[in-house]
Amino acid sequence: MIKVILNGCSGKMGKMVFETTSQFPNIEIVAGIDKFPAELGFPIFKNIEDVNIDYDVLLDFSRADALVNLLALTDKTKKPLVICSTGFSKEDLALIDEKSKTLPLFRSANMSLGINLINSLLKKVAPLLYGNYDIEIVEKHHNQKVDAPSGTAILLADTIRDSLTQPTEYVYGREGNSKRKETEIGIHAIRGGSIVGDHEVIFAGTGEIIELTHKAISREVFAVGALKACEYMSNIKKSGLYSMDDVIGL
Amino acid sequence: MIKVILNGCSGKMGKMVFETTSQFPNIEIVAGIDKFPAELGFPIFKNIEDVNIDYDVLLDFSRADALVNLLALTDKTKKPLVICSTGFSKEDLALIDEKSKTLPLFRSANMSLGINLINSLLKKVAPLLYGNYDIEIVEKHHNQKVDAPSGTAILLADTIRDSLTQPTEYVYGREGNSKRKETEIGIHAIRGGSIVGDHEVIFAGTGEIIELTHKAISREVFAVGALKACEYMSNIKKSGLYSMDDVIGL
Amino acid sequence: MIKVILNGCSGKMGKMVFETTSQFPNIEIVAGIDKFPAELGFPIFKNIEDVNIDYDVLLDFSRADALVNLLALTDKTKKPLVICSTGFSKEDLALIDEKSKTLPLFRSANMSLGINLINSLLKKVAPLLYGNYDIEIVEKHHNQKVDAPSGTAILLADTIRDSLTQPTEYVYGREGNSKRKETEIGIHAIRGGSIVGDHEVIFAGTGEIIELTHKAISREVFAVGALKACEYMSNIKKSGLYSMDDVIGL
Amino acid sequence: MIKVILNGCSGKMGKMVFETTSQFPNIEIVAGIDKFPAELGFPIFKNIEDVNIDYDVLLDFSRADALVNLLALTDKTKKPLVICSTGFSKEDLALIDEKSKTLPLFRSANMSLGINLINSLLKKVAPLLYGNYDIEIVEKHHNQKVDAPSGTAILLADTIRDSLTQPTEYVYGREGNSKRKETEIGIHAIRGGSIVGDHEVIFAGTGEIIELTHKAISREVFAVGALKACEYMSNIKKSGLYSMDDVIGL
Repeated sequence: MIKVILNGCSGKMGKMVFETTSQFPNIEIVAGIDKFPAELGFPIFKNIEDVNIDYDVLLDFSRADALVNLLALTDKTKKPLVICSTGFSKEDLALIDEKSKTLPLFRSANMSLGINLINSLLKKVAPLLYGNYDIEIVEKHHNQKVDAPSGTAILLADTIRDSLTQPTEYVYGREGNSKRKETEIGIHAIRGGSIVGDHEVIFAGTGEIIELTHKAISREVFAVGALKACEYMSNIKKSGLYSMDDVIGL
Repeated sequence: MIKVILNGCSGKMGKMVFETTSQFPNIEIVAGIDKFPAELGFPIFKNIEDVNIDYDVLLDFSRADALVNLLALTDKTKKPLVICSTGFSKEDLALIDEKSKTLPLFRSANMSLGINLINSLLKKVAPLLYGNYDIEIVEKHHNQKVDAPSGTAILLADTIRDSLTQPTEYVYGREGNSKRKETEIGIHAIRGGSIVGDHEVIFAGTGEIIELTHKAISREVFAVGALKACEYMSNIKKSGLYSMDDVIGL
Repeated sequence: MIKVILNGCSGKMGKMVFETTSQFPNIEIVAGIDKFPAELGFPIFKNIEDVNIDYDVLLDFSRADALVNLLALTDKTKKPLVICSTGFSKEDLALIDEKSKTLPLFRSANMSLGINLINSLLKKVAPLLYGNYDIEIVEKHHNQKVDAPSGTAILLADTIRDSLTQPTEYVYGREGNSKRKETEIGIHAIRGGSIVGDHEVIFAGTGEIIELTHKAISREVFAVGALKACEYMSNIKKSGLYSMDDVIGL
Repeated sequence: MIKVILNGCSGKMGKMVFETTSQFPNIEIVAGIDKFPAELGFPIFKNIEDVNIDYDVLLDFSRADALVNLLALTDKTKKPLVICSTGFSKEDLALIDEKSKTLPLFRSANMSLGINLINSLLKKVAPLLYGNYDIEIVEKHHNQKVDAPSGTAILLADTIRDSLTQPTEYVYGREGNSKRKETEIGIHAIRGGSIVGDHEVIFAGTGEIIELTHKAISREVFAVGALKACEYMSNIKKSGLYSMDDVIGL
């Protein structure tokens, strides 16, 4: 059984993580940390400094300003720390980097296992197919999204581009008369209603099409990703900065 | 049993029409017309002028230059003529128009029943959903296609636009920072490999998405459309210029 | 401006309806009714009997036991009543039926505009395509759903069956060696994860495929449906039992 | 430039391979072998025994009974042989196995690069996701297909099953009342019209869905696969029995 302490246990994401442990029979939340303790069935410390029990992984779903205290506790216990808060400053990120030289730390820009998995697969698949298969990315999001294409679509396109020895160019829509060039990566941003977020990478060849697709349904996906990271980090003794790529291990 | 005479029976499309009659137990090809007679199991006239047998529908899958002779035969028999050849000049089209005042003629810009059906549905669906549902069109074609978006995508978009009292504007791709406007109709052209032709009309609302999709597999679709038109026209005595819209009848 | 009174305004769905009015510039919630008044920016009556202001439509998103009082108020004002509560007994439904002889009442088994729209389209499309196009339904739901296929999939299949003069038979999966019969309607229930609910009706013909698809994202869809019903009913003076089919009007 | 000799060059697939070389600037068909020479722009030997020129890869798209002569030529030249014919007997397969101890031979049950790629990915993806993601396979084929599910769907399911340490059970459709079990792999066979062949592997988790999809468009896919195999084998000196798995190399 992996003993997890959950920082930010009373928040929206904290509660979701706790509910999601029902899918992970090998994980137990042995304690929480939160200024506002909720009735969750496990002891809750009001401050990180108060933690005085044994644990295997410290999981953080709170705010960027908890970082220093979390690192201090980790320094004491040498146990893995999984950081899922967001909004870190450049200085914060530099500190995480520095501390990862002596501590086992985990942090990922995107906590969705699915997006990270597809991103990993693209590193293998794109070089194999490029030249005989045309690559196009279609993403769909709700009509309130301001940026296009989505950050995730750009992440996937960049991964494809970086995996290839040939030069590529991004094309964000097509109108008029000109044939597709082999070097194009088409990126199409559909916007409408309350679509949560779909990403589809299409490899269209002669006689066949291969598609890798990700569809987001709800933010629960981040709770699953966090617990997968806890599972993985529970076996890590060595210092370093780990990410979802390590969890996926392709 | 509907007795059909098939002009252009030895050509690629002619043969496909004949094979497709196996799906239409109520249709019989009683004769063909072709300069190059093939062994097809029914009598073949070398010239349109030679036709001297009774029939219910005259189906044409040949070339634009057969038009005058086809109309002359139709003038004599007063039986419906289904025109599926392409490449007509302005003068040809004017002649078809003129002759339809006294003869039952059928001609459709697109012989796919599916595309015409979706086009018909859009006339009903778009005015009902506009305002609460965002409309986006995604089309996919092979990498040798020169024009973007496809003519069919433009046809569908124009049908939507014309069915609405509110003004709309077409958007052919998105890059940068700006929120979708309600008046936008997004039209996205994916190009890759040997994709035959897909069209998807998306109505994305709050909490739900409705999609009307058409996927072309092969040109057999035009043979089915032609025989559906023969079925429909076999009941038509009145002069007029009929199209797939009449076959669909929505 | 359509003046709506919202019964059950402090509940989950009530609040969602209020938020969704931002999409309906022609609708205003002029008052709510709820035992537990919330701060929503409009006056709230504690009891249905207390309502003493003018309105155009009375919208109910509360509980089945409010029915008698809602009908009493409607009897007094003769204004349309849109019933979106669920869990009615046989006696309740009989009462709604009876009262609809003298009052304009609205009630629909499914408040999703999209599902009702696709259901309406099927009545037109299925008879046109049957015989040349094979019909298959694919539905996807989360892994906690007990019944298969979904009630909505059965609704859609029954609508297809009832629209046809030919007999059909439902097939719920395929394994072994036997060719598809023309009379089959395949119904396939995919179960997995937290999928909210997708329904896809496939018409697969020779050379082309036509698909009508519905994807549920969240229960907000019912709020949109309710306000669409209010829009429609605001023009209704005649007594009768109206439903989403009337709103769609195909 | 890779010099390929093409056995069976005048057949349907042989011609398709030749046309497809336009996509492979590094491959040249330097000669063909066929009892019925066609005008293809390269010299054609009538018999395998007649081949007397240098080459890098011998590609076979003919019939099972050419095997012995192909192996004899390969014995002489020690150059790689890519076998794409089908219909081999048990004895033939045993002979290929035996000869692969001394010669570089290539043979794959399925020559589609896409299907083999997805099959390879599943070996990595399934063990990572199983337990938190439900696995379902949906395949679609034309209405003349006799077996269900397709051989390819079973191949994919078996690959998933064999990659897992946990036991699984195949479910071929769902009707009635019972919740999905974690150990189920749903396999759904849609049949309709002239669908060429789609395969979709769905991993449905909490909050997200990952899909790996393959869509066949035409048999050209086998020509691309064969030329990809020639590219790969042109670098192989070592004896052995190679397959698409080696080409993909994941």
